[in-house]
Amino acid sequence: MRLTRRIAIGTGLAAALPLAGHAAQPLAGRQAPSFFRSKIGDFEVTAINDGLAQRPLDGFIKNAPIEEVRKVLGDAFMAQDKITIPFTSVVVNTGSKLILLDSGNGDLGAPTTGSWMANFRAAGFDPDKVDAVLISHFHGDHINGTRLKDGKAVFPNAEIMVSAPEWDFWMDDGKMAQAPEGMKPAFQNVRRVFAPMAKDVKRFDWGKEIVSGITAVAAPGHTPGHTVFAVQSGNARFLMMSDLTNNTAVFVRKPDWQAIVDMDGEVARQSRHRMLDLAASEKMQVAFYHAPFPATGHILRDGAGAYQLVPALWQPLG
Amino acid sequence: MRLTRRIAIGTGLAAALPLAGHAAQPLAGRQAPSFFRSKIGDFEVTAINDGLAQRPLDGFIKNAPIEEVRKVLGDAFMAQDKITIPFTSVVVNTGSKLILLDSGNGDLGAPTTGSWMANFRAAGFDPDKVDAVLISHFHGDHINGTRLKDGKAVFPNAEIMVSAPEWDFWMDDGKMAQAPEGMKPAFQNVRRVFAPMAKDVKRFDWGKEIVSGITAVAAPGHTPGHTVFAVQSGNARFLMMSDLTNNTAVFVRKPDWQAIVDMDGEVARQSRHRMLDLAASEKMQVAFYHAPFPATGHILRDGAGAYQLVPALWQPLG
Repeated sequence: MRLTRRIAIGTGLAAALPLAGHAAQPLAGRQAPSFFRSKIGDFEVTAINDGLAQRPLDGFIKNAPIEEVRKVLGDAFMAQDKITIPFTSVVVNTGSKLILLDSGNGDLGAPTTGSWMANFRAAGFDPDKVDAVLISHFHGDHINGTRLKDGKAVFPNAEIMVSAPEWDFWMDDGKMAQAPEGMKPAFQNVRRVFAPMAKDVKRFDWGKEIVSGITAVAAPGHTPGHTVFAVQSGNARFLMMSDLTNNTAVFVRKPDWQAIVDMDGEVARQSRHRMLDLAASEKMQVAFYHAPFPATGHILRDGAGAYQLVPALWQPLG
Repeated sequence: MRLTRRIAIGTGLAAALPLAGHAAQPLAGRQAPSFFRSKIGDFEVTAINDGLAQRPLDGFIKNAPIEEVRKVLGDAFMAQDKITIPFTSVVVNTGSKLILLDSGNGDLGAPTTGSWMANFRAAGFDPDKVDAVLISHFHGDHINGTRLKDGKAVFPNAEIMVSAPEWDFWMDDGKMAQAPEGMKPAFQNVRRVFAPMAKDVKRFDWGKEIVSGITAVAAPGHTPGHTVFAVQSGNARFLMMSDLTNNTAVFVRKPDWQAIVDMDGEVARQSRHRMLDLAASEKMQVAFYHAPFPATGHILRDGAGAYQLVPALWQPLG
């Protein structure tokens, strides 16, 4: 070890590179355009990144010692004093319809988010051409991308489609009145986004194919109407896992751990196990809204009741 | 399980999406530009992908039953009847010098390669502005990008820098004469690339800082002069692991397995263990020429003498 470390650090005998006939190349200072395409049967599924955010770690996980949480974060080479939450939504191009699964933070997220539209456009998409936006649940980071701070509708020609139980919960003024103060802004934000188009919003039921090739799957717990989307083209299937986890490095490895952001932790735990088991058994490609970009891959069993997310192989589409 | 699988497949009750006031968005048919930036101290390190290739699996690994190899490939959700070999080289911008570590397949690789220059340009780089190309070893997929089929030098203003033992081995006409027939094309290709500029090629010794911030580290076995590059800026360090593995999903998990493409399998095994141990102990960011893009991340110990490559967190540079 000593020897190799000494070698890796170098001998300090710098030999300055002799030539430099041109100006130095400035540092780019920017990440690559952050989209990633997969072929699912005849469909193209494109992951669109919206940056990431961090939340305080203390108290984030209700039922595990913080030292264990730090260990899991360290094994993922993520910050150990915060919980890192990446954001990636998914566009499904069926060849005839352009369907968006959740919409990003819009202009209301943390300063380290907000790259969604640039990445969406870099992928060759136009918000005017989106046919439908399917919403997994009503937290701000999933719906704010549909309506900017100034009230502008971002996808003017799209059907907005939401799960009926999610709509019924959040649009219930009685529930808003009874909610703890800390939750009231979330109710108000739901009204900010949906009230101007309430009569046009389409509500779907779980277990139904709501758009050609895309089925809504019940996955409650994170919120009452939290939905996973199953995409199918021919024999190829893909599961958008939405917020079954808030950080895949933590909750895919430790599916029994419960996040403070899950409204019903136990129901969320059951939904998480059920869908991870399904994805592992069927070897379906999956995506998670809160996985490190490109946020898509496969679920591998890793011991009893634990899993890994194996990132998708980055490859040409052909 | 039965229930969830039935739900995920859907009930078959398709509700056609009603609106379609515009033409369908054509499928893109292309992957995203495939580059990825990391900040290493004051340096920017950019991974540049050159696609991937597949080789027959049979006989590729000399000392493991093929069923075990297939299991490891399956756990990585890679093809199990071939060995998948991705290609990614690295550009280091020190702020004053633009240094390329290996050059890709140029126009002499498999049909599923050849995207290197497009990705390099997409990252904002110009081949005329490269100050130095550091070559890890002389296999075609690492050197052909410096000289095209028609003889054109791709980086006309760059110093070409190679390890002295690698040069001494491949440029030795006696060694070429003694080599088995199957290896002669590799010797001839080395001459194709280097003969026109032989007098200008700079040979470096292991253990020396060869360009400001970049040290050549001995890692023989894959070839006699195979080199790892240690990049250092301030306290931040990065290791370009070159061909310590031909597929990280296999040889990082199973460092004792030996590939047929390693000229001295036992020496390669020792180099691989030494450098994986160093990277895991020091928690340095690493890249591998043959890892799935973005081909960079960290090495985590995973049991005795085994490791995982944890992909780098995709994030803004700020």
